[in-house]
Amino acid sequence: MNFASDNTAPVSPAILHAIAQANASHVASYGADPLTARAKSRASEIFETDLALYPVATGTAANALALATLVKPYNAVICAEEAHIATDECGAPEFFMGGAKLLTLPAADGRITPMQIEAAVARAIDGGIHHVQPEAVSITQATEWGTVYAVDAVAEIGAACRRRGLALHMDGARFANALVHLGCTPAELTWKAGVDVLSFGATKNGALAAEAVIFFNPALAAGFERRRKRAGHLWSKMRYISAQLGAYLEDGLWLDNARAANRAATRLADGLAGAADVRLVQPVQANELFVAMPDEKIEALEAAGAHFYRWIDVAGEPLPVIRLVTSFVTTDAEVDAFLALAATA
Amino acid sequence: MNFASDNTAPVSPAILHAIAQANASHVASYGADPLTARAKSRASEIFETDLALYPVATGTAANALALATLVKPYNAVICAEEAHIATDECGAPEFFMGGAKLLTLPAADGRITPMQIEAAVARAIDGGIHHVQPEAVSITQATEWGTVYAVDAVAEIGAACRRRGLALHMDGARFANALVHLGCTPAELTWKAGVDVLSFGATKNGALAAEAVIFFNPALAAGFERRRKRAGHLWSKMRYISAQLGAYLEDGLWLDNARAANRAATRLADGLAGAADVRLVQPVQANELFVAMPDEKIEALEAAGAHFYRWIDVAGEPLPVIRLVTSFVTTDAEVDAFLALAATA
Amino acid sequence: MNFASDNTAPVSPAILHAIAQANASHVASYGADPLTARAKSRASEIFETDLALYPVATGTAANALALATLVKPYNAVICAEEAHIATDECGAPEFFMGGAKLLTLPAADGRITPMQIEAAVARAIDGGIHHVQPEAVSITQATEWGTVYAVDAVAEIGAACRRRGLALHMDGARFANALVHLGCTPAELTWKAGVDVLSFGATKNGALAAEAVIFFNPALAAGFERRRKRAGHLWSKMRYISAQLGAYLEDGLWLDNARAANRAATRLADGLAGAADVRLVQPVQANELFVAMPDEKIEALEAAGAHFYRWIDVAGEPLPVIRLVTSFVTTDAEVDAFLALAATA
Amino acid sequence: MNFASDNTAPVSPAILHAIAQANASHVASYGADPLTARAKSRASEIFETDLALYPVATGTAANALALATLVKPYNAVICAEEAHIATDECGAPEFFMGGAKLLTLPAADGRITPMQIEAAVARAIDGGIHHVQPEAVSITQATEWGTVYAVDAVAEIGAACRRRGLALHMDGARFANALVHLGCTPAELTWKAGVDVLSFGATKNGALAAEAVIFFNPALAAGFERRRKRAGHLWSKMRYISAQLGAYLEDGLWLDNARAANRAATRLADGLAGAADVRLVQPVQANELFVAMPDEKIEALEAAGAHFYRWIDVAGEPLPVIRLVTSFVTTDAEVDAFLALAATA
Repeated sequence: MNFASDNTAPVSPAILHAIAQANASHVASYGADPLTARAKSRASEIFETDLALYPVATGTAANALALATLVKPYNAVICAEEAHIATDECGAPEFFMGGAKLLTLPAADGRITPMQIEAAVARAIDGGIHHVQPEAVSITQATEWGTVYAVDAVAEIGAACRRRGLALHMDGARFANALVHLGCTPAELTWKAGVDVLSFGATKNGALAAEAVIFFNPALAAGFERRRKRAGHLWSKMRYISAQLGAYLEDGLWLDNARAANRAATRLADGLAGAADVRLVQPVQANELFVAMPDEKIEALEAAGAHFYRWIDVAGEPLPVIRLVTSFVTTDAEVDAFLALAATA
Repeated sequence: MNFASDNTAPVSPAILHAIAQANASHVASYGADPLTARAKSRASEIFETDLALYPVATGTAANALALATLVKPYNAVICAEEAHIATDECGAPEFFMGGAKLLTLPAADGRITPMQIEAAVARAIDGGIHHVQPEAVSITQATEWGTVYAVDAVAEIGAACRRRGLALHMDGARFANALVHLGCTPAELTWKAGVDVLSFGATKNGALAAEAVIFFNPALAAGFERRRKRAGHLWSKMRYISAQLGAYLEDGLWLDNARAANRAATRLADGLAGAADVRLVQPVQANELFVAMPDEKIEALEAAGAHFYRWIDVAGEPLPVIRLVTSFVTTDAEVDAFLALAATA
Repeated sequence: MNFASDNTAPVSPAILHAIAQANASHVASYGADPLTARAKSRASEIFETDLALYPVATGTAANALALATLVKPYNAVICAEEAHIATDECGAPEFFMGGAKLLTLPAADGRITPMQIEAAVARAIDGGIHHVQPEAVSITQATEWGTVYAVDAVAEIGAACRRRGLALHMDGARFANALVHLGCTPAELTWKAGVDVLSFGATKNGALAAEAVIFFNPALAAGFERRRKRAGHLWSKMRYISAQLGAYLEDGLWLDNARAANRAATRLADGLAGAADVRLVQPVQANELFVAMPDEKIEALEAAGAHFYRWIDVAGEPLPVIRLVTSFVTTDAEVDAFLALAATA
Repeated sequence: MNFASDNTAPVSPAILHAIAQANASHVASYGADPLTARAKSRASEIFETDLALYPVATGTAANALALATLVKPYNAVICAEEAHIATDECGAPEFFMGGAKLLTLPAADGRITPMQIEAAVARAIDGGIHHVQPEAVSITQATEWGTVYAVDAVAEIGAACRRRGLALHMDGARFANALVHLGCTPAELTWKAGVDVLSFGATKNGALAAEAVIFFNPALAAGFERRRKRAGHLWSKMRYISAQLGAYLEDGLWLDNARAANRAATRLADGLAGAADVRLVQPVQANELFVAMPDEKIEALEAAGAHFYRWIDVAGEPLPVIRLVTSFVTTDAEVDAFLALAATA
């Protein structure tokens, strides 16, 4: 019963197999290899557009490099108060951007709105030379609260960005989970809705260490490769990240894994719905649940061996809140064991 | 006949195997796992001392993070003019250190001397508030010219550093190659000689993507973990780097691989010694050769399918110079085929 | 009737005179001059303690250099949401600190509390390696809302900082205005209350371009001089800043100027108190007023030639808000003219 | 007999007078004042072209802000080994550029050549993704060795920059001294010769603290104002820098002062030419002399009260070298007193 995080999960066998298959001698280094080319062309098929794709090993690197490419050091990024880039990357975006600021907006369910963005821009303009000016917006899909922006919601943000001359970045550490929840195409959820750059996550969904920064307008990627190199994120043996991305994108593995994780989350949510002293504080739309329950129940679950994190307080919710995360290896048995405990604890 | 670089080599089977073995479910993330602990304790045995060890995926990350931990943004690092940190990391040290400078010293064979270090320090002090002050020295072992600092040479630099209050960093991307050349112990070549921090390379010598930053005085490592996180170099599934390091250090794999690479380099050097129009421009002490030869011979070798890089001009050497790099998978057949071509070309 | 800002005011004649007096030939550059020594010793007398004092030309430089000296790039500063360092310095603190973050706290009247600080620290600790950790607190005295921390309030924040191992910085761009409002000693309002570093402003209160960064514990100032130099804030002819500071601190000029500015603000506040459609949205404790009034009145005042800024919306206040700032040259006649207009507009 | 530096000199009376004249009440802050507009229009007349002009207080700020505007953090600036930006600004360019590197070229007399620039570019291109790429060249006029680039020499560097797509920056801390030596027009020495940005110094030549960053192509200045603000170099009372620049540029004061300083340097050089044990190690073309002489003579001069600096060793010169700097207040009497001592010492 481990619901601590999707990053405690293992690597999908098909991905491990692809790494082993990549193990030939004397392959060109630094990305000039066929596997890296294949990862890019496969992504291009899936997203139905020409794109620039850069493999990196971590989500923090993907986000920080993407934002640094979009935003000058004296400008700013608009994002949600609880965005991963704002709270969980130890200042990586600021470091990579050379000190540019994050302008954070309150977002009770993790989603920011075009109206908030407009207001932030207006205030910055009002501040003139003294106030940093936004140059990009970053949204998380699925959000840190396990919710998902509808395609229209993304498109409205995209439109606001175009009106204001802002680039739009999507932190897609759990992009696959959002996509299978919505049932739309990858293109509809990204560039067709105005997303310029996507941090496309694989690590939480079955890879070993593989993310891709995808620019839907390759012209926006100027300088990215140099930034990746000087950040120590250019692998000499890059084929071993690219092999992961290739296997992830072949045969629908990425969607299968995401569906399995979301299904387990839904099973958990459905099972918890009945309990009188338990409340879901957010809708469950991906593979994360935020659940309010009495302290004694939390302690009883922990004592019984369930793993999860206590989360930050939720406004208006008197009970403490825990976070449960499922992954592609979460079994029905694990879920049911947890539900049984939750029902009795 | 591929002598382009040791980073075109594959992964040692034992290391691939260790990655597959690490593939259990629900392992604690961010390094709180037994494989990471094991990599550290194994390094501690090998270096015969307590130490702090941090796995990262690239050598540039290892160097830049190590130096940023040692050096404040308004200070400087002394190193050789041709040091990898100065010429081949696209400014990563400056980026990670927040703008601190590299003060470079000419070093015809890649090795700098205590006397040069003393002179650089004296000049900086003379420059007062206007001149950046050195806070660390970085040496490369084996050097970028395929030469190796003797244990005594390192110790003399270590002594100069202590006199001047400087930290001593060793870029050990090819540490194993230097070590087996010298036949000393890892401790003798590092902390016993005054080295404070080692970038301990494995990627060029059989790993997939694995380096370790080793602080022999763990107190010097303050802040390292935060710097690693904010640089995007903290893997969520860190066990998969640690598994590589573990296998690399078990059963002498690291030394065996280095011996194989060095042996191939020596075989190449011995074979080239006879040719009248070919000159080794540096002693061959690790797994790199720098060879001067007429342009026509270089072209003939390239035409015959040999892979290598043309290098920068060498002072006093009228002929162009090529670099040949061997690795643990270089075969005698490859070497001999190259030598046969070189003899006739 | 110019209430736009105290930085549209001129230079006090005594300060201009001191600059002219400093104009001898061949004075040692970069601060090794008697006027710089005198500014420091005079501050030491006034603050009744040994201290390190560094003249700089702007308040943004003073704040950013002070914070960069206190806080490592991977850490953070706690401050109020509307702090000048957070909203009006175009990211200078982040730039100088190498990307460290500001963790902002809501503060309706500009003042943050020890309880808020404790909560921010607790949350950061809870976030572990992923969340930046506070290393300093910065408070503004007088605040951006024209309010003043009582001596006890500063002391309670100082105590919270010591409990949590945080340094305490005070942005004293309007320190003199706060001091004369409180009637305490400079020592009571700073180091005796736990303030480690003060940005001591003079420019808004009669100087040409002069601020001083004062470290009450000179050991904390390590590296400050190098940071000042590499930021381009070390004047070669430093005596001309120091002469300003000297004149500012001699004969109580700094206190006289502040008293004049505060008195004008009080006169304005008293005069506005009667008007039915006008509300002071903050207590007036220094030389700034924030006044809610109907749009038509604002427009009428502007049309009549009054200069001031429209301010950001104030929660719970339906009317728009303007800011009025007085200075040492504000005359009773100017105030009364404004009041007359406000009464009729 | 003070020849330590031109920054120990006082302020020209006309400049002090202009500051006093600027001391009116309620002048718009942050540069929106008539004096700032006048400084710009006057420079435009003098340089015979439209331009963007930004006043700052120090030469280091001018240089570092100019370079940061031209060069991205992952690129580099080509300059002379002994350039002020490389050796005497404590890393300010690297700080402001976000870690971009300086690629330094040996320059025995302070002047670099188009051929050196071409070679540096070629080497960088050869280094590919691993090597920082130059984006600008910076030359100093007059140089750190007191020599002056001829107009043609600047134009040839300008042509090399255009061929290679590099911006050309001129550090003109002593621009006036170079200009009066050459007798050309300001336009000929700058934009007509391919200079894009000039750090135009006044402080060493009679101002209190005033430099101007001048972009001859205003489009290149994008972002400059934000960089200046976030570096703490935007003065609230900017009129007091602009007043200095205005007076400096009116009535030829800047040229008169430079002529006086150069004349004193020439008188010194002529007087020293005769002495048997004294050698000028560089031609004297501006207001600096570098003089080799026996240690005993240096000591005797110091003992007699002459002020100057001992300089770094000069290759091929066995005697120690001192630097003598003249300024607009150096008198014939001072020069002659020094010469008398030098003849006898």
